[in-house]
This record gives sequence, C-alpha cells and structure tokens, in this order.
Amino acid sequence: MIESSEPLAAAVVPGDQRAPTADEARRIGVIDLGSNTARLVVFECNGTSSYRMVDSVRERVRLAEGLNQDGTLKPAAISRALAAMELFHDFVMAVGLDGLEVIATSAVRDAANREEILGPLRELGLEPRVLDGHLEAAYGVLAVANTSCVDNAWVIDQGGGSLQLSLMEHRTYQHGEAFQLGTLRLTEAFLASEHTRPVTPAQVREVENHLEKTLGPALEALRQKPYPLVCMGGTVRNLASAAQHQQQYPLNLLHGYRLRQQPLEQLTRLVLQRTVNERQALPGLSTDRADVIGAGAITFRWLLRKSQRKELVISGAGVREGALLRRLLPAPHLIEDVRRFSIGNVASHYPQPVVHTENVVRLALQLFDQLQPLHGLAAADRLLLEAAAGLHDIGMAVSYYRHHRHGAFLLEAAGLDGFEHHEIAMLSLLVRYHRKSIPSRGAFATLLAGEEDERRLWSLAACLRLAEHLERSRTGRIGDLEFKIADDVATLHLKSKVPPTVEIWEARKDAELFELAFERKLEIQHRPS
Amino acid sequence: MIESSEPLAAAVVPGDQRAPTADEARRIGVIDLGSNTARLVVFECNGTSSYRMVDSVRERVRLAEGLNQDGTLKPAAISRALAAMELFHDFVMAVGLDGLEVIATSAVRDAANREEILGPLRELGLEPRVLDGHLEAAYGVLAVANTSCVDNAWVIDQGGGSLQLSLMEHRTYQHGEAFQLGTLRLTEAFLASEHTRPVTPAQVREVENHLEKTLGPALEALRQKPYPLVCMGGTVRNLASAAQHQQQYPLNLLHGYRLRQQPLEQLTRLVLQRTVNERQALPGLSTDRADVIGAGAITFRWLLRKSQRKELVISGAGVREGALLRRLLPAPHLIEDVRRFSIGNVASHYPQPVVHTENVVRLALQLFDQLQPLHGLAAADRLLLEAAAGLHDIGMAVSYYRHHRHGAFLLEAAGLDGFEHHEIAMLSLLVRYHRKSIPSRGAFATLLAGEEDERRLWSLAACLRLAEHLERSRTGRIGDLEFKIADDVATLHLKSKVPPTVEIWEARKDAELFELAFERKLEIQHRPS
Repeated sequence: MIESSEPLAAAVVPGDQRAPTADEARRIGVIDLGSNTARLVVFECNGTSSYRMVDSVRERVRLAEGLNQDGTLKPAAISRALAAMELFHDFVMAVGLDGLEVIATSAVRDAANREEILGPLRELGLEPRVLDGHLEAAYGVLAVANTSCVDNAWVIDQGGGSLQLSLMEHRTYQHGEAFQLGTLRLTEAFLASEHTRPVTPAQVREVENHLEKTLGPALEALRQKPYPLVCMGGTVRNLASAAQHQQQYPLNLLHGYRLRQQPLEQLTRLVLQRTVNERQALPGLSTDRADVIGAGAITFRWLLRKSQRKELVISGAGVREGALLRRLLPAPHLIEDVRRFSIGNVASHYPQPVVHTENVVRLALQLFDQLQPLHGLAAADRLLLEAAAGLHDIGMAVSYYRHHRHGAFLLEAAGLDGFEHHEIAMLSLLVRYHRKSIPSRGAFATLLAGEEDERRLWSLAACLRLAEHLERSRTGRIGDLEFKIADDVATLHLKSKVPPTVEIWEARKDAELFELAFERKLEIQHRPS
Repeated sequence: MIESSEPLAAAVVPGDQRAPTADEARRIGVIDLGSNTARLVVFECNGTSSYRMVDSVRERVRLAEGLNQDGTLKPAAISRALAAMELFHDFVMAVGLDGLEVIATSAVRDAANREEILGPLRELGLEPRVLDGHLEAAYGVLAVANTSCVDNAWVIDQGGGSLQLSLMEHRTYQHGEAFQLGTLRLTEAFLASEHTRPVTPAQVREVENHLEKTLGPALEALRQKPYPLVCMGGTVRNLASAAQHQQQYPLNLLHGYRLRQQPLEQLTRLVLQRTVNERQALPGLSTDRADVIGAGAITFRWLLRKSQRKELVISGAGVREGALLRRLLPAPHLIEDVRRFSIGNVASHYPQPVVHTENVVRLALQLFDQLQPLHGLAAADRLLLEAAAGLHDIGMAVSYYRHHRHGAFLLEAAGLDGFEHHEIAMLSLLVRYHRKSIPSRGAFATLLAGEEDERRLWSLAACLRLAEHLERSRTGRIGDLEFKIADDVATLHLKSKVPPTVEIWEARKDAELFELAFERKLEIQHRPS
C-alpha cells in the first residue's frame, strides 16, 4: 500500500472567468476515482459556517473490472477512467475552483500496475492522493462524525473495490480496515452469471461463506461494542432508496434512514429473484447499479443478521464529504454542534427576516420553559422547538400564501443533519402548523406513532404559534413574558413598552390549540414595562 | 356618491425600528375596508421591477350588516370595523411602511351615516379614500390588465356590498357600474334562513329574479362583446377553490383558473343543499364565508348561464392590487409585458447564477430556431421555452439533489401571471425534465390532453436539455451553433474557442430524447471559432 501523505496542498485551479472576491463563497472540488464510479463534486463553502453541494458529475468507469484475476488494471478500464478524468479536468479548468482534492481508493491502491494510470493523471495535473485503507476508513468516519449526532459507531463503507469497517468512538476514528469485499469484486468472483439468470441459493451461500471467512473475525468486536452500524456508499444508499419505495416511506431522505431487517430481507429476495434486466423495474434502484446490487444486498443482509442489530443507519455523506471536511475545518475537523450547524445551513439558503426569526426563537423557548410544568417535555424537544422556530418562515421564499406549507416542503427536501427522521417529521409539522389549524400527524403517522407524539406535537406547536403571534408585528415588542398557571386557566403576562395590540389580538386566536395542548384556558394580560 | 379624489398622498408611516436605505425594497401597505372583510396587505416592491405580498391581516367585520334595512351602518358593525382598523393602525405603526393606501368600498359609500365611521378613522389617521363605483371598477380592471394577458374582458367583482361590472378594452378601463348585489346584501335580503335549513328553490328563484331585474339590462352588452368574463373577489375565489377540490385539479393555483359551467352547476347544488354548518365540510370552502357563499354561487351560476359563456376566468388579483399598481407604476399604470415581468418576479426570489441562466436561455432559443423546420412550433411555445430556461435552476435553492423536481414545485407554487394553467403545467414539466428522463405529462395529463401536447413537451424539453448540457461547465463556452438537418440525422456544429469537452460529452447523452422529439439521430461536431 502507498502510505498516505499530508493533505494535498491547496490545489487552486482558477477558471478563466473566475475572479473570486473576499465575500464570495469558496468553491472546493472533490474528485473521487473509485473502483466502480468516478465522481467530481463541487461544494460551495462560506468560511466554516456552511457548505453545500452545488454540482456533481458522475461517470461509471468500472476501474476495478477484472482486477481480481491478475491484480492489474485492464487497459480498457484505464481508458475509461482516464476519459472520465480528462472530462473532470476540462470541467474544473472551465468553471474554476478555489481548491481541489483528488483521491483514489481501492482499485488504484490494489493494482500492481497503478503507475499506468497514475502517470497519465500526473501529466494531466490530477494525480490523486491514493488513500490507504486506514485513511479511506478515517475519511468515512469524519463524514459520520460531522453529519450525525452519533458519538460511537461502526462505520461500514462498501464501494466497488473494497469494504471499510471502522470504529468511531467519541466522534473520533479509532481504527479501521479495508477488506476486498467491494460489490464489483464480489460480483465478478461469485455472481458473474446474474445477467442471464437469477442468483441461485448456492451462489448466495458462496458469497456468504466468503464474507464469513473474510469478515468473521471482525464480527466479534462488532458484537462486543453494540454501537449502531452506520453504512455508506452508493450500494447501500440504493438499497435504502428501494426499501423506502417498497415501504411507501413518508420522507424522501436517505441520510439518517434506518433500514430495518424485515424490509432488507424482503428487498434482497426481490433483487436476487430477478435477472439484472428485470431489476431495472424495481422502483428506487438505479439502472447502472443493477448488476452489482445483488452482491451489496447479500453483504448487508449478512451483516445485519450476524451483527445482532435490528437496523442499519444510512449515511448520505461519505469519503468525499470526509475529504472536504478535513480540508475545511481545522483539526480535529469536527463541527461543534452538528444540529445547530445544519439549521444554520438550511436557514442560510432562504432570505429571512433575521430579527423576527430571532424573536420567535426567543419567545418560543421562553414559553416552553414557562409551561414546563404542564408539558413535561425534554431538552431534545426544546431543541426541536428552537429549530422549528428558526426555520418557520423559510417558505416565504416561495410565496406568502401557504408559506407554512411551502416551508414544510423545503425543510423535508433539504433534510437536517443530526436529526432523526421522526424529528424531521416533527419539525416539518411544526412549520406546517405554525400559523393555523389543529396539527395532525397526517402522512407522518408511521414515523410518529405514539399517542404521546401527538401530545408533543400539540404542545410544541402551541408554543411556536403563540410565539409567532406574539411577534405578529415582527418588531420584537414583547420584551418578556410570564405564565401564571392555575388549575383551569393559564394567564400569560406580557411586558412591553407600548400595548401590543396586534400581538394580543392574534394570540387570543390560539386559545383552542393551547387548551388542547395544556388543558387550560389561555388568558392574556399586558403589563407596561 | 363621494367623488374620488386624486390618489392619496404618499402616506409614509415609518416604524420605530425602520430605517429604509436606498437599496432596500420599499414596503407599501394597502388597507381595504370592505363590506364583508377588512384587510391589510403589505407588498414589498423593488422599484417597478417586481412586487410581492409579504404580509396580510384579515378581519371579518361585516360592516354592511343590516345596511339594507335603513341605509345606515349599525353601531355594532361600526365597532367591529373600527376595532379592525385600530388593529391595522397598530400593525402599520409598529412595522413601519414606506407608503400606505387606505380605501373603502360599498358599505361606506352607500351608508347615510358614513361620517360615524369616517370621523373616527380620520382621528386615527386612517381616513380612507372612499371609492365610488367607477373607481372601484377601474381598480379591478387595473389588476386584470397587469396580471393577465387578456386585452379585452368583462371584469366582475363581487364583494360583500356591491358587484362591479366593468368593460376593459385594449387593457384599459372603458366603463363600469356598481350594483347593490354583494353577497352579504343578497344573503340578508333573500337567504336569511339558510343558517337553519338549506336554500329552497323558491329562494333561489327570488335571488335570480332580483339579479335579472338589476343586471338584466347589462347582459345585452355582455352578449354583444363576447370577451371573457374575468371574476374577482373572495367569494368567487372560494367557489373556484371548492370546484378545484371537487375536480382534483392538478394545480394549486386560483389565479387564471377557468371555472367551467358543469363544475359550477354541481358545486352550486352541493352548497345550496346544505345548511351553513354543513357547508363547512365541503373541502376548499372557507369557514367564515359559509353563510354568504350561497348568494355568490347563485350569482355566478346565473351569470354564466345568461351570458352564453362556457367559463369564468378567476383573477386572484383585485382592488387591492389595483390600488398598489396605480401607485407603483406611472400612468397609464401598465406593466409592459406581464409574462416577462412575472418570470423576472419569480426568478428574483431565488439566488441563481445569472450568467449561466442567460446562456441557457440564449442557447435554448437558438436551438428552437434552428430546429424550427422539424418541430414547427409557434411563438407562444418559444416564449414558454424562454421562461422555462430562465427558471430552470430555481430548485437549486432547495438542494442540488433533485433540484429539477424542487424547481418544478417552486414554479407551481409561485404561479406565473399572464400564463394559462396549461402553460404553467408545461413550464413545470420542462423544469422537471431539464436534466434527465423522458418527459411524461403525469398528473398534468388533464391539462395537457392532446397528443400534440406530448410532442410539444418532447420538443421543448429536448431544446432546453440540450441547451443546459451545452452550458454544462456554466461558463458560456459555446459561442454559436448551427444545425445541419438531413433526413435521418441532425448534425449540430458548435463554435467555441476551446474544445468544449464536457459540453459535448453531456450533450451526447441527450440523443434519445432528441430522437424521440425530432425523429433524427443527433450528431455533434466542434468547430474552433
């Protein structure tokens, strides 16, 4: 293996037309020459306060094709990879970037003749850092640590060439290993016939025996440290997408999705019963993975069965995000508070009246705290309220009419790193109902199944809506507030310099939801401050 | 009647916290004291290049309640209206505005004791301009002229107190008249029993006889000039919304909706069969209009039957927009090109790479023109392509992944003035399919019913997608292009200084859609310029 060097020096590649200015966002490219696909992704970064993908070019190069037989990259595979890299080079030079990371993984590092591709790439000016197995694993861990709220996890990254299994503890990479268990390799070794006929039980057993032989020793550690299994890579994301279609899952988000045993078992059967062509008809499966998805399904099904877990947690972020974050953030390359970071990230996409939003956040949290004896909710719920208040008006970007609905859509579409899907569902509902109507779980009833979820929804929605209405003039007139809670009435005392006429008038309309949530009548009084 | 005066002087009302700067958008408020509801709407205006509603407060005041009997406003009604206006005053003073228009319509102008409300409003600093019937009608026409592409129309505005019928020709108000046919008045006069029991056939006949007596003479003119009937006001919008629910209409837009005879007849029966309480269960009907919607339904059904039209065209814009536009635009208060104005209006909501978008527009139109012999489409289709190209990337505001779908959603949610609904459906599909997949009409099959619509969709989508891919590096590398069209091949010659590698590589992927649309193979060649 090639030992990893220090991070690539800032490979600044300005485009002809590009003249970056001080206040402009920086654009960083990451090229990832994988065993199955080559990909160029462009991120736009505002300092270290937000980043987002703004472009992506993907070519299926199958660089590792045939690598099993003699350990060398095939000329045709090298040609495909070079063609893709020339394309990326053209793209990068044309658009201009403020920095570029180029990485290569298993196919290149494991090839006896890797110089045959590294040489031309060097001439092109795109020589990749060839990640050794540890570094590849560590990049994956970096992505998980910065896009979830998990402190400890096993991180599993199956690519076309290799599978990395790493241990993360306290958000930090502990150790990891790369196994020759990429989907392309497994397919070539055991499932080459699947183009013409379904996979046979005997073939499945062969793959599973091979997994047992290779990964078996590592399983013991997995069982001893019962951390969640966080899985990344195109194959598992694709399996998750297909499983969501099968389940009619109510959120269109892969990152953070929990793929449970039963749907995975069912999906694996569906995949293996079909030839490669027949798989194209399965909704959610991507056409150009149809021939390697079988190997992936067998791998993850086996892992889930053997590890004594109930589910795999999907990560939408992986090695590319790891490479970006390592460059973007000072060591130890960790975002301090992933959830607040992602709230800010989403909020920054939409023009919002900052002061009004801050006021609603402040009031909502004050109301939550004052009403604590009545709702008894936890700190996690308080954070949800804070997030919903911070994002409640993003739908105004679409139109004033129905902006509560638009906002819920935008929030669901953007996703929020670090939040569970049931939390995102709750956030979406809070934004959806921040103005009117009695909140109902609707399509999210499967994610928010408990009766106490409905009560939580009502309580949080009542706090947010009251805060919104106490900020009706959007001018921060309500300086402070205090609740006096009696058996059947809760009296809200508002402090403000001038009588907040509009605010009181609007807030009085919230009595119905308030009563539903807190089983008290709502009374409102103004005290000049 | 009170004669209308000159436009209200700029009633600039700066809020305590408001310090408008030169580059900040101006905020103009319009208060509309109607017979049924009082409303304050705030618009944000960027010079005369765009405007959008950013806030709205609505109170149901029923100012005209009981006005029929003795021609005077009732003390309770005056109190309700004054309470609402005090509220608006508080709101306006708190938020601060750069200008305010206050108008009052039928209830005030027709009341013998109007001074009892005008006096207190004067003291409050909110004395309205009391619109006479002509001016009210002219404001409605101004709204139609600036939010549709209709040159000639009959404009019908039914409020709570009166119904205005006006003639617009060449986008200009010709004449108009106000009739005492508001929904509140009709309800009080003929349908007062409907709270407790459904409307009887005899009651319907009474209303219709009254309509015949009052509007009958005007009908002749309507029949002689067979212009479309453009209808505005809360009641008809609400009827349209309910009809859309009944039809499972695929767009959630009222402005520009064509309410046809059959759905209106059906809806009217549904409404009249129900008591006011039972009407609440009809989806789309607003709760606080349930008691006057019957009168509105009878009115518009009668109008449609008698006028020998097939449909009513709904306008979402009305007197308030008229008041804003009259203030915003220099006489004759007309936006030159409504469609391009609204494209710009929507585009301005979302951060977009301006140069890339301009390049895609330019290339798409070049392709359209070059391929004219193959598609034979009209100038209206060319404009659709221009609009879709101008808006194709708005979904990037939500997230890069699936931005084509997000963009289609945003476009549908925002609506586009001056475009027919079937055109908005086409625009949405063009944005939706600007990157990949074979376009299909999907949910819009009812709006785009013809086989030639599918062909149009393919042709326009092929032009847009090819343009997008010829701008893949987003740097305007393709300076010019030319098609050579043969019987089975169309060869695209690209001119650019450097070989546009990325562009050609992406554009070659468009061959399938191109062949479907134009029945030619697509070949691409580069000519250094």
